[in-house]
Amino acid sequence: MTIKHALPVTRDQDFAAWYQAVIAEADLAEESGVRGCMVIRPWGYGIWERIQRLLDERIKATGHENCYFPLFIPLSYFEKEAEHVEGFAKEMAVVTHHRLIGDGKGGLVPDPAAKLEEPLIVRPTSETVIGAAFARWVQSWRDLPVLINQWANVVRWEMRTRMFLRTSEFLWQEGHTAHASVQEARDETLKMLEVYRAFAEDCLALPVVAGEKPENERFPGAVATYSIEAMMQDGKALQAGTSHFLGTNFASAQNIRFQNAGGELELANTTSWGVSTRMIGGVIMVHGDDDGLRVPPRIAPWQVVIVPMLRDGPEDEALVAYCKALQQELATLAAFGEPLRALLDLKPAKAAAKRWGWVKKGAPLVVEVGPRDMAGGNVSVVRRDRLYRADGKLDSAIVARATFVAEASGLLESVQAALFAEAAARLRGSIAPAADLAAVEAHFADTCANPGWVDVAWARPAGAALDAVVERLKALKLTIRNAPLAQGAIDGPCVFTGAPAVERVLVGRAY
Amino acid sequence: MTIKHALPVTRDQDFAAWYQAVIAEADLAEESGVRGCMVIRPWGYGIWERIQRLLDERIKATGHENCYFPLFIPLSYFEKEAEHVEGFAKEMAVVTHHRLIGDGKGGLVPDPAAKLEEPLIVRPTSETVIGAAFARWVQSWRDLPVLINQWANVVRWEMRTRMFLRTSEFLWQEGHTAHASVQEARDETLKMLEVYRAFAEDCLALPVVAGEKPENERFPGAVATYSIEAMMQDGKALQAGTSHFLGTNFASAQNIRFQNAGGELELANTTSWGVSTRMIGGVIMVHGDDDGLRVPPRIAPWQVVIVPMLRDGPEDEALVAYCKALQQELATLAAFGEPLRALLDLKPAKAAAKRWGWVKKGAPLVVEVGPRDMAGGNVSVVRRDRLYRADGKLDSAIVARATFVAEASGLLESVQAALFAEAAARLRGSIAPAADLAAVEAHFADTCANPGWVDVAWARPAGAALDAVVERLKALKLTIRNAPLAQGAIDGPCVFTGAPAVERVLVGRAY
Repeated sequence: MTIKHALPVTRDQDFAAWYQAVIAEADLAEESGVRGCMVIRPWGYGIWERIQRLLDERIKATGHENCYFPLFIPLSYFEKEAEHVEGFAKEMAVVTHHRLIGDGKGGLVPDPAAKLEEPLIVRPTSETVIGAAFARWVQSWRDLPVLINQWANVVRWEMRTRMFLRTSEFLWQEGHTAHASVQEARDETLKMLEVYRAFAEDCLALPVVAGEKPENERFPGAVATYSIEAMMQDGKALQAGTSHFLGTNFASAQNIRFQNAGGELELANTTSWGVSTRMIGGVIMVHGDDDGLRVPPRIAPWQVVIVPMLRDGPEDEALVAYCKALQQELATLAAFGEPLRALLDLKPAKAAAKRWGWVKKGAPLVVEVGPRDMAGGNVSVVRRDRLYRADGKLDSAIVARATFVAEASGLLESVQAALFAEAAARLRGSIAPAADLAAVEAHFADTCANPGWVDVAWARPAGAALDAVVERLKALKLTIRNAPLAQGAIDGPCVFTGAPAVERVLVGRAY
Repeated sequence: MTIKHALPVTRDQDFAAWYQAVIAEADLAEESGVRGCMVIRPWGYGIWERIQRLLDERIKATGHENCYFPLFIPLSYFEKEAEHVEGFAKEMAVVTHHRLIGDGKGGLVPDPAAKLEEPLIVRPTSETVIGAAFARWVQSWRDLPVLINQWANVVRWEMRTRMFLRTSEFLWQEGHTAHASVQEARDETLKMLEVYRAFAEDCLALPVVAGEKPENERFPGAVATYSIEAMMQDGKALQAGTSHFLGTNFASAQNIRFQNAGGELELANTTSWGVSTRMIGGVIMVHGDDDGLRVPPRIAPWQVVIVPMLRDGPEDEALVAYCKALQQELATLAAFGEPLRALLDLKPAKAAAKRWGWVKKGAPLVVEVGPRDMAGGNVSVVRRDRLYRADGKLDSAIVARATFVAEASGLLESVQAALFAEAAARLRGSIAPAADLAAVEAHFADTCANPGWVDVAWARPAGAALDAVVERLKALKLTIRNAPLAQGAIDGPCVFTGAPAVERVLVGRAY
């Protein structure tokens, strides 16, 4: 049978248009009228608040403290770390004046008398300004490690933007640490990568591959960059978080030195790591379907939404009371070790419109209550992850109110697990080995909806040899995503150079 | 007796220098090297996180949802609301370029080829950009009210800055709402003022006076501005939060119109309200003493800090275990309806230095545990709000460990209440009536440490008459703080004009 889905466009028809439709129909975000910047609406921001809350707990549990550093970075700070500025100089917002004046024609212009002596850069990332603080804070080995994090907005001027995935301004957290030894800094880099992996899988139900990025994809100024890569439903990769071992590159530029236990002056080893609102783009493209978003319950602003079927009559009062009691009872429950989040939707709109609104937003459980449900002591429950029955009808199950309350937490856990299982099966089933470059080409020449990634052995070429590989892949619109930490058997020669392979890497298209 | 206090300068010696000393010695914040911007360090940011958490709950409990709007506002948005831009145009950061290029001498300059067609303003406040969104969101009376809030950084270029009180960049929340009727919008304005009053008093232990600002102190573009005013220990006022009724001024400039139930097009009435990191400056100047900060327990990042008196010997192990067990037991308790926050400080430093570090930071309860305490099943407790005994010695009370655990939550409530009571008594005792301008002048001519405020009757002059009053007060370095909502008897003539008085206002010096 044909199901009439809630979105105006399906994933099969046009994945890019479908992505925009989910964002619009689920009220996640919208264009702001300001170039490259979006407005994050309450449902989208609510998801970000959940992400913040859950990830922040894990960042703190690993010993990091939150701070706040300036939005503006003096131009000269960027001039210190040559490789870093090379990577960022092309796309930054530059503040040059600190006042506006009237132009005499009713308009406003920057006041020429208020030109800054040194331009200020709106932070694209904060290694330079935080490094300057570390240099003040660190004198002795006793001051190490320094383990800090900030939640902030950053700006990278982007020519082509896409909501959540690539916007000029975005929200993120950036962790920055300084350590006495290389080993400790390397351990930190991998520890935070693992925090990201576990967070993505446990909380976002986003299966990811954790691994090291190739040299050409390193953060500007990093010695090693690691990422978690998620697979979207169109088979493209989304880099959902990165963790960088910076060695002494930034410490040297910023003069972060400490006296070691032997009294000698040493450079600190630093790390940085971040995830951003981009993760929400990943959640959309991994869990969304043709009826909108499906939000994993752990990050759903409302996990259960109750929609009373009101008729604008006197009988409404009892129905609202029945629903209120249900909402209050649900609110006393715990789900995933936190209070369950249940909303009673009393907005002035038709019940069917509200139901479909919550389906498009992706609330995990939508509970409809009509007079007949109330009379029977029941509720009608829709599970967002299994919207339709085999016959194509909406799967709305009438269950006793008491049964629903008793099972609500378990149902939410079941939805969370089902979303993860579905995405994990897709990821597992969409990574294919390729023995040589011809096989890689053939794989991606196929025009299936989800080509996934290929898993190839390579010799980890560097310099010009790596450039040649990157160019060859670029012609196929492919990139090396990462070399998974969990390595398979490294057999045969490098698919690119024919030299003996030293590791396996994942290759795919990407956002 | 003379107590040797922990700070290098006392409040009596130099209040301004004392304020800076508290910020430095309590590790709250520091100069960033970026003009007008500060680095908020973990203890300072931890206090802000507590403020955010507690106030956010109250903002949500009153029906508001969080969103996020762009950092950048196109220049043209400011040109629409004439009065608003008049108030802000003088002090804004202007982005004019989106790229840097090398200057050929190893430095960087804004790329002339990347000059923006329209300059972007770093938001000083978001009425204009949020109003533009409201215009998109609001079509019918059914779309109203719109009740939103955002937590964000804003920038107002300041010539003279002071940490927390006046920085070019600061952190805040800004609520913005749109309503169908004047009455509803006015009610909202006062509802949020009351949320601020209750939050300041309940959570920050900051007694405040809620009232309406005089016309000359209104937010640019507002019909009415209300504030909560707190009194610092030097008698100066600190405006700690504001709530604005904007009438249809912004709706008219931004075209926020709705079809009412009768089918006619009407302008919405809007409000905005905010509090910022400035509140932390208020907490410092109300609760700080000559030994540093005293943080009210509800907003203390750590409410109980355990300092083991280690001797770098084998006996340390048992002591650490004793302290760990104590920390874990405390963490299972609730204080103020939340899990109690207890830290075990194991940093490599001497116990006495750590104790004084926590005293300066203002942790509400500092628990020292030495081998003798452990042997007796005891702990030594210092209450930060009562640091010294009558004889001038540190008041460290040895109590049974079990007793301390049983009483910890109650002790924290007692510290919170004591801080509020002390500040409330000071506020009450430092507001004096003045019957005429001579009495006002005489009051502030006196050079006592805390002149407080005077409470005068006035005729609420407008226009030129108000300007004259403002100028006269300015000569005395005074401003009208607000007309308290709780009005005393309005007797006699206006102290400024001699006309019949219509309300009482508070007059004082201010930050």
